[in-house]
Amino acid sequence: MKTFQTLLKITTPKRGTYSITDKIEQCVKESGIQSGLCHVFCQHTSASLIITENADPTVREDIEYWMQKTILDGDPAYRHNYEGDDDMSGHIRSMITQSSQTLPVSNNRLNLGTWQGIFLYEHRTGRFERRLVVTTQGA
Amino acid sequence: MKTFQTLLKITTPKRGTYSITDKIEQCVKESGIQSGLCHVFCQHTSASLIITENADPTVREDIEYWMQKTILDGDPAYRHNYEGDDDMSGHIRSMITQSSQTLPVSNNRLNLGTWQGIFLYEHRTGRFERRLVVTTQGA
Amino acid sequence: MKTFQTLLKITTPKRGTYSITDKIEQCVKESGIQSGLCHVFCQHTSASLIITENADPTVREDIEYWMQKTILDGDPAYRHNYEGDDDMSGHIRSMITQSSQTLPVSNNRLNLGTWQGIFLYEHRTGRFERRLVVTTQGA
Repeated sequence: MKTFQTLLKITTPKRGTYSITDKIEQCVKESGIQSGLCHVFCQHTSASLIITENADPTVREDIEYWMQKTILDGDPAYRHNYEGDDDMSGHIRSMITQSSQTLPVSNNRLNLGTWQGIFLYEHRTGRFERRLVVTTQGA
Repeated sequence: MKTFQTLLKITTPKRGTYSITDKIEQCVKESGIQSGLCHVFCQHTSASLIITENADPTVREDIEYWMQKTILDGDPAYRHNYEGDDDMSGHIRSMITQSSQTLPVSNNRLNLGTWQGIFLYEHRTGRFERRLVVTTQGA
Repeated sequence: MKTFQTLLKITTPKRGTYSITDKIEQCVKESGIQSGLCHVFCQHTSASLIITENADPTVREDIEYWMQKTILDGDPAYRHNYEGDDDMSGHIRSMITQSSQTLPVSNNRLNLGTWQGIFLYEHRTGRFERRLVVTTQGA
């Protein structure tokens, strides 16, 4: 049993979803771990991690539509709005998705379903550099 | 410290929640692991895992009511609707619940609270076979 | 590699968010584990764990505002209301946030982002004692 930890930095040019499946797969490969778990942690409170369909990009457009409808940008009732209309909505979006995802590792690979991809979801409208801590544990 | 991994296949006849607590407990027992963590991963993007009250089934009926009210089936604004009205709503429902649950293991048993159960939540209206990867790690 | 498990009991006087970052940090320190993962599990179905901004308390007031707007207390359509208007809403709030959070451990410390805090979110309006199982695994 061992632990292997890596820091990834991802630049997000604007609000939206960015596939990180290949980058996480690479971390697992480098770990040499055959069987275990890979944990991906997003060190931010207005960006998060989702697992969703990896084939048709309109899935992620519809997710963004639902997010905008359900979690208003610039709701006048928000008290916390220092950084703009996407500040508070970014925190709520992050909370109802996930700060981390844990994935099974089998045969030194992520053991995802056929249609699953892992995405960094940037909830702010501007450009950011986001940090992910990737920890693989197993035998 | 060791890792023990199993694949479970669950048939879901229709939309709804299916208790998997006993099946996961069995995986933990087979692992022989006394103290550690059990990770359950759903390999799909329109079915997910929730932890909720295990006693009164109306809890899960009310959850389904809230889901239908908050995440519309067949919203005309969705672009992704190849597989019907429950296609895109299934992806959003999965995203705001969880693709995986991690549970503490103590004395070779799941260390859940008295009222907690683990449920596979099928978000599609048809019949599916769903795959769960169960990984127990510990000493 | 080793596993270190602790039970924390937290009294929540009323609905709201309670910082547990320092308490979890203490569990990690006691484990002696340098590199790995820390898993925090809430043994309840109407209290949950969130990671959000740790500086401005209005962030968590706005989260509570959004929760009340999106998940009605005492919705007349709920069937499960034995324990009052906050009973069923508490279960739904718990489901769309998280029963557990897994956090990276580096150099015997939680490796959180600068602005991240871990909060126990009490969804019931009364006073409760909540139990958290904290499991740290690593080398």
